[in-house]
Amino acid sequence: MPTTRTTTATTRATTTPAEDGNDLRDRYHRVRGFTESLAEPLSPEDQTVQTMPDVSPTKWHRAHTTWFFETFLLGPYERGYTEVDPAYAFLFNSYYEAVGPRHARPERGLLSRPGVAEIGRYRAKVDEVMDHLLATGDEAEPRVPELIELGLHHEQQHQELLLMDIKHVLSVNPLRPAYRGFERPAALGTPPEGSPTWIEHAGGVASVGHAGDGFCFDNETPRHDVLLAPYAIRSSLVTAGDWLAFMTEGGYREPALWMSDGWATVQAHDWQAPEYWVRADDGWLIQTLAGPRPVDPDEPVCHVSWYEADAFARWAGCRLPTEAEWEVVATARARPLASAAGDPPGVAGLDEAGLAGSGLHPVPPAPGDEQWFGAVWQWTASPYGPYPGFQPAAGAVGEYNGKFMVNQQVLRGGACVTPAGHSRPSYRNFFPPAARWPFCGLRLAVDR
Amino acid sequence: MPTTRTTTATTRATTTPAEDGNDLRDRYHRVRGFTESLAEPLSPEDQTVQTMPDVSPTKWHRAHTTWFFETFLLGPYERGYTEVDPAYAFLFNSYYEAVGPRHARPERGLLSRPGVAEIGRYRAKVDEVMDHLLATGDEAEPRVPELIELGLHHEQQHQELLLMDIKHVLSVNPLRPAYRGFERPAALGTPPEGSPTWIEHAGGVASVGHAGDGFCFDNETPRHDVLLAPYAIRSSLVTAGDWLAFMTEGGYREPALWMSDGWATVQAHDWQAPEYWVRADDGWLIQTLAGPRPVDPDEPVCHVSWYEADAFARWAGCRLPTEAEWEVVATARARPLASAAGDPPGVAGLDEAGLAGSGLHPVPPAPGDEQWFGAVWQWTASPYGPYPGFQPAAGAVGEYNGKFMVNQQVLRGGACVTPAGHSRPSYRNFFPPAARWPFCGLRLAVDR
Amino acid sequence: MPTTRTTTATTRATTTPAEDGNDLRDRYHRVRGFTESLAEPLSPEDQTVQTMPDVSPTKWHRAHTTWFFETFLLGPYERGYTEVDPAYAFLFNSYYEAVGPRHARPERGLLSRPGVAEIGRYRAKVDEVMDHLLATGDEAEPRVPELIELGLHHEQQHQELLLMDIKHVLSVNPLRPAYRGFERPAALGTPPEGSPTWIEHAGGVASVGHAGDGFCFDNETPRHDVLLAPYAIRSSLVTAGDWLAFMTEGGYREPALWMSDGWATVQAHDWQAPEYWVRADDGWLIQTLAGPRPVDPDEPVCHVSWYEADAFARWAGCRLPTEAEWEVVATARARPLASAAGDPPGVAGLDEAGLAGSGLHPVPPAPGDEQWFGAVWQWTASPYGPYPGFQPAAGAVGEYNGKFMVNQQVLRGGACVTPAGHSRPSYRNFFPPAARWPFCGLRLAVDR
Amino acid sequence: MPTTRTTTATTRATTTPAEDGNDLRDRYHRVRGFTESLAEPLSPEDQTVQTMPDVSPTKWHRAHTTWFFETFLLGPYERGYTEVDPAYAFLFNSYYEAVGPRHARPERGLLSRPGVAEIGRYRAKVDEVMDHLLATGDEAEPRVPELIELGLHHEQQHQELLLMDIKHVLSVNPLRPAYRGFERPAALGTPPEGSPTWIEHAGGVASVGHAGDGFCFDNETPRHDVLLAPYAIRSSLVTAGDWLAFMTEGGYREPALWMSDGWATVQAHDWQAPEYWVRADDGWLIQTLAGPRPVDPDEPVCHVSWYEADAFARWAGCRLPTEAEWEVVATARARPLASAAGDPPGVAGLDEAGLAGSGLHPVPPAPGDEQWFGAVWQWTASPYGPYPGFQPAAGAVGEYNGKFMVNQQVLRGGACVTPAGHSRPSYRNFFPPAARWPFCGLRLAVDR
Repeated sequence: MPTTRTTTATTRATTTPAEDGNDLRDRYHRVRGFTESLAEPLSPEDQTVQTMPDVSPTKWHRAHTTWFFETFLLGPYERGYTEVDPAYAFLFNSYYEAVGPRHARPERGLLSRPGVAEIGRYRAKVDEVMDHLLATGDEAEPRVPELIELGLHHEQQHQELLLMDIKHVLSVNPLRPAYRGFERPAALGTPPEGSPTWIEHAGGVASVGHAGDGFCFDNETPRHDVLLAPYAIRSSLVTAGDWLAFMTEGGYREPALWMSDGWATVQAHDWQAPEYWVRADDGWLIQTLAGPRPVDPDEPVCHVSWYEADAFARWAGCRLPTEAEWEVVATARARPLASAAGDPPGVAGLDEAGLAGSGLHPVPPAPGDEQWFGAVWQWTASPYGPYPGFQPAAGAVGEYNGKFMVNQQVLRGGACVTPAGHSRPSYRNFFPPAARWPFCGLRLAVDR
Repeated sequence: MPTTRTTTATTRATTTPAEDGNDLRDRYHRVRGFTESLAEPLSPEDQTVQTMPDVSPTKWHRAHTTWFFETFLLGPYERGYTEVDPAYAFLFNSYYEAVGPRHARPERGLLSRPGVAEIGRYRAKVDEVMDHLLATGDEAEPRVPELIELGLHHEQQHQELLLMDIKHVLSVNPLRPAYRGFERPAALGTPPEGSPTWIEHAGGVASVGHAGDGFCFDNETPRHDVLLAPYAIRSSLVTAGDWLAFMTEGGYREPALWMSDGWATVQAHDWQAPEYWVRADDGWLIQTLAGPRPVDPDEPVCHVSWYEADAFARWAGCRLPTEAEWEVVATARARPLASAAGDPPGVAGLDEAGLAGSGLHPVPPAPGDEQWFGAVWQWTASPYGPYPGFQPAAGAVGEYNGKFMVNQQVLRGGACVTPAGHSRPSYRNFFPPAARWPFCGLRLAVDR
Repeated sequence: MPTTRTTTATTRATTTPAEDGNDLRDRYHRVRGFTESLAEPLSPEDQTVQTMPDVSPTKWHRAHTTWFFETFLLGPYERGYTEVDPAYAFLFNSYYEAVGPRHARPERGLLSRPGVAEIGRYRAKVDEVMDHLLATGDEAEPRVPELIELGLHHEQQHQELLLMDIKHVLSVNPLRPAYRGFERPAALGTPPEGSPTWIEHAGGVASVGHAGDGFCFDNETPRHDVLLAPYAIRSSLVTAGDWLAFMTEGGYREPALWMSDGWATVQAHDWQAPEYWVRADDGWLIQTLAGPRPVDPDEPVCHVSWYEADAFARWAGCRLPTEAEWEVVATARARPLASAAGDPPGVAGLDEAGLAGSGLHPVPPAPGDEQWFGAVWQWTASPYGPYPGFQPAAGAVGEYNGKFMVNQQVLRGGACVTPAGHSRPSYRNFFPPAARWPFCGLRLAVDR
Repeated sequence: MPTTRTTTATTRATTTPAEDGNDLRDRYHRVRGFTESLAEPLSPEDQTVQTMPDVSPTKWHRAHTTWFFETFLLGPYERGYTEVDPAYAFLFNSYYEAVGPRHARPERGLLSRPGVAEIGRYRAKVDEVMDHLLATGDEAEPRVPELIELGLHHEQQHQELLLMDIKHVLSVNPLRPAYRGFERPAALGTPPEGSPTWIEHAGGVASVGHAGDGFCFDNETPRHDVLLAPYAIRSSLVTAGDWLAFMTEGGYREPALWMSDGWATVQAHDWQAPEYWVRADDGWLIQTLAGPRPVDPDEPVCHVSWYEADAFARWAGCRLPTEAEWEVVATARARPLASAAGDPPGVAGLDEAGLAGSGLHPVPPAPGDEQWFGAVWQWTASPYGPYPGFQPAAGAVGEYNGKFMVNQQVLRGGACVTPAGHSRPSYRNFFPPAARWPFCGLRLAVDR
């Protein structure tokens, strides 16, 4: 499952000269603190529930990210460290076969203990010892900062998972509770000027994969050449209004538009609209993290599976872009991911909300924004697999991206719930083609 | 499901002359308060979890019993009453088809809201209005005290269910938490003097079913005659030591001892011992509400299914008693259920623990105690069905015992977690033959 | 599963003085031949298919009944006998744990070999050796005729099962094939004169269970006394016309009429009519062994589960009779099961069709016929359990009726597909309460 | 499911000048006759059974391929044609949504009718009318020969499916029956001279996809360029002996070798060897279509899933080739697929056995044979997807390859059960990564 993967550092250096130990310590506490602020609006009961096997309880996310630092940093590198509780290795290992057996994923919601308060103490204790390691450990052991970097990116992934999971937890409750209210930015509500356009690409050999010195996951490497045929890609995302047209014109009832597996899935679950859309007397509501509200036709469509995205593209006479096609154009077009100059990579633009986009729900684009990042993850036509020459990292931390390279489709970009600075043009997200609970949408492409 | 049944008052008067409105009010608060004291050791997380469809979360039990008073008392009889939250009728109805649709039973653990605090306020609010009804309602409406009586017995059933459910919740946690510690009574630990004996009965026509003026459920009526063949019944319960012999001699591996469905169940679940027995290095542990501890061979065996009880009896060259055989002897032999003279029926003997027996786990019998009550519910040979001439009560409160009269076996007696004064010789408990999570054991009978 | 049970001889003598070896040999061949005549209209493909776990392929029935004689007669009593194929013990044992492992019941339809021709040769070979045993074996070994008797009754049970199973096989085929055509007896089609009446019984002590010298199964013993309250039982079966009224008045939509488990079953399977009823443009068709035809309101309703029978009785303001109530009246009222004087017990009345009633489908009663036998098996209110003092036979042949004595309801009487002479007033048939594919209907009772 | 796909003609001409109507008529009867010869050793019972959802009964394959000609040729192009039975459109449509509803795939084994004889008559009748169409239809309607060509390739696909399906049917039978005996070619049994070698490729731009005038399926088009990195591919297949080493060294027990989904599949099914391998007292047997026989270490391994092939490659320090890597080398290296000069494409080399390789089971290579074809289908690293610019054919015949382009992996080459002349270097076979019942093996590749 993609939600259980984490990440592995590449072998290249992941710290820049500008970042010394104090900066890393500062970032450590900012990222860790942001997790706690995400859990803050949630009661102990909210943090305990698991509503489907893909979903993990909030308190599990809080503990698992802590276990990561304990297992891969404090255990090996902090002299004399004793684990907080020996049972936690069993309870909070997600899927690392090399680290030992673990509690079954679909049963995480059966555990009332350790409770929220105990997990808070666990986090505090690990942070305290990490503080010591951050102050002392980097010189003796050069791998420490690299692994801390990895742990922070890992935690950011779980920040996004925490939000998509709690959205599901709250959505099955007939009381329709909100995670918290949110204000739409004042600048929004005005549809963007000018029509979306096709961005043309002439094809030919292009390079894809991570470039430069910053952090990346192993699955973004090695950088390599690909051969592209001429194509065009849309300058905007598919919107909720576009999707309503698809629904109205029978998109969910016409088998010719669908992959065979997709059609079987539509039938089995009686899909008639994206996940979290609820039919109301006078139209459709969307259940958001801020509670239910009417569909805004200008906002990007969200919570559609790859099967639906693929069928929509066929209905529109288009197709999904490949991940290479997406990356080549996004690299050229995406505005620099908003970050104050000099910010260390990975937490650039961490604002009050701490999220890359407008927070809890994708909103219509601001003028000129093509929404490559910060609105929704975008399904591509590409099955997830290794790049030519791919090698996973050695050791337990290598059990990450590599072992999920089958039965998944790649998504590119980043969503409103992606932590600020966490994504980049070469970032490869992936989920099974039936997944709908991530914040996933699409943009279209055509052959030229 | 038996855990979802509740009870219905018979048409006979259920209050005795000695009990006036003040007494009932007092009892109301004692029973309601005891539920809260049972929940007191449990965290919000503990109260939220559901570990199998049969189990309900603690907070659901607390809310459902409250909804009962709101729906059947305050709604009809308290002038101008407005329900606390209209959604609660959907969330906390257990199975009353006549009262409307309801939230699916196996999904009770998916709901984090309303939380424990909100349910506490719900209970307080209903208690407050009930106080007013108790002070004013009885004269105008003679059915009120009868329905309150019913609601209190209903709540007592859920007190027992709450304990057996939380035992399951805590047992699946690898941390093996205890509900609370308990002290074994000092008098115990000494095996009873004298061997158990066979209590002989010559057969013939006997009367069974509820007699007298006290409260009973509809399924205990009408009292009627049965024709018994000569038989003998054991003066003591089957013990854990007896069960160890059965296990050692291959009881779980010999198909000839088992009903065909029972054998299939043994195979499917790989049963090798009672529920909650855990193999340790040097013997067997039992996971109790007070945590794990070694098997005491003198204590009654507990948490065995009907299939196991039936196979054990066959192995022992005996059989299970019918419910009539059990009732006839128990009525004659059972010591009066300890109650201070003058106590109102139904809460007699409500001590500090509030439970009929020694509290959280069955203990070896005190000298002279035949343990008809207060240790374990006792499986009988009788499938659960209607007595000749049985009529369920009219209205929604009639949807109780009657609709469960197939696919279940009768248990008699009462367990250590049964609220004091809640049971009686004519009480008919029932569960499906594979159920193990209730506190159920057995005693043996033979033909003469 | 009741379809897998067979029978066990009681210890009493099962042959009458009038029946010598020649008679038994004659009966052996008549019963065995009748099985073959039942399979005759079926192609090899028809005989191979299994459409649900409860159903067995025709060729399996033919082989299993043969295996019974091979295992319990030829193996122990025919000197020097070598089994036809050692694999058959694994393939054709139904459920005898004591005889060894066996092929899984739900997978009988996965076996194309041995084929129909090979099974025909198996039957012929065993019959040939049995002929020798029948000619020689009885003097040396008195148990031989008793076991042959048992084998013949066992085979008759499978004759009925063969028909109810092939009915299911053919019914799932969209081509709606018929097993074979049948002619309704000329005398029928005229509704019986006179209205059905209540047959009154004053209650009191009565004897039930098998009496006399003839063959019976162990579960019909010991004969014993029961105490009956006054009651009345209907002189006629519930008809298809009665059932249409139940359907029209919403019987399948009113939860108050149903057991809780029954209501859940109705919802899960969306039951709206008896099994094999198919909605047509202008009414209901019934898919019979002779193909589809319109419902005849005068014919007994058939293929209803116990849940439906119980709900119907409640809707009608009545109840189902207990098995004792049924037996006491049926013994007094049923006309002698038509048999030419002097016919050996068990095949009395074996006519051309070889079936007890009118053949392949229940028909309206002839004048004066109360249809205790020969139309449909009749659900009773009684869960299936042991009679007081019941003892199963020793050895592998004891693994029969006894081990199914939980989770089943008793049916009494006999159906149109029951082999002639196979049933009797004390015969106890049984199925789980959700079973619909047997030929089961009901008659009503009331308290007096 | 791949087994349900069929094929679509490309728009290019599929007949060569050398082939006139008589040739096509001749080929029609040879291909159709070969299907019948494949069914010939099978009894009606064998032809009826379905042992898992993926498997179809033999008689279904015979009827479905006939329905194809009836639906796509006789219906539209034979004047005045009336279908043999209107129900067949429902029963024998595999998955063509545009052609109407159809019988559920997993329930094909529940149908005993139409039987084998009736299906034989269906085939004969359609062949007779096709004969007339072949004699008259081509001039008036140029699409007729193209569709017949398609129908013949479709039937050849089902010939292979028929064999892999009946292999499964026979394999679950404890009697271990053989489909038919076969003789290993005399030339075999001698391991090939010289060691396998690495075939080097320098990388760069290469063309893949179908070239030339012959028949191909739509998924082999358009021909297009790909950019390859330098690599090497093995000149021989992985053998059973190689696989034994993998097993012995714990390949099935080491999670680090496996994709996450693959490891879960290994655990769920307890895989310890390829499908059809059976542990014997002194080694491993393979259950072949000719019955069980010992593993020959020199024969290609067969019946391994993609998960296993991928794990094996990792264990060997290699990887699977991509489909482009495979095609480029196979095109250069594969000896011309043995065909007498002048044979029409598609049935070249149809010998007595009619199969491309040595018949029923893969054998060790003859000297100099690199086994690109005729032994086993070879898993590649490539998920199955559309080539750039891919367009499925219009109309119902377009519902073929395209709609399966997700959740599947590509296999290349051809197996011993592939009809002679049916495959080619650009042929793209595909199955889900867990499939084992096709004749699938692998060859290795490495980066250079």
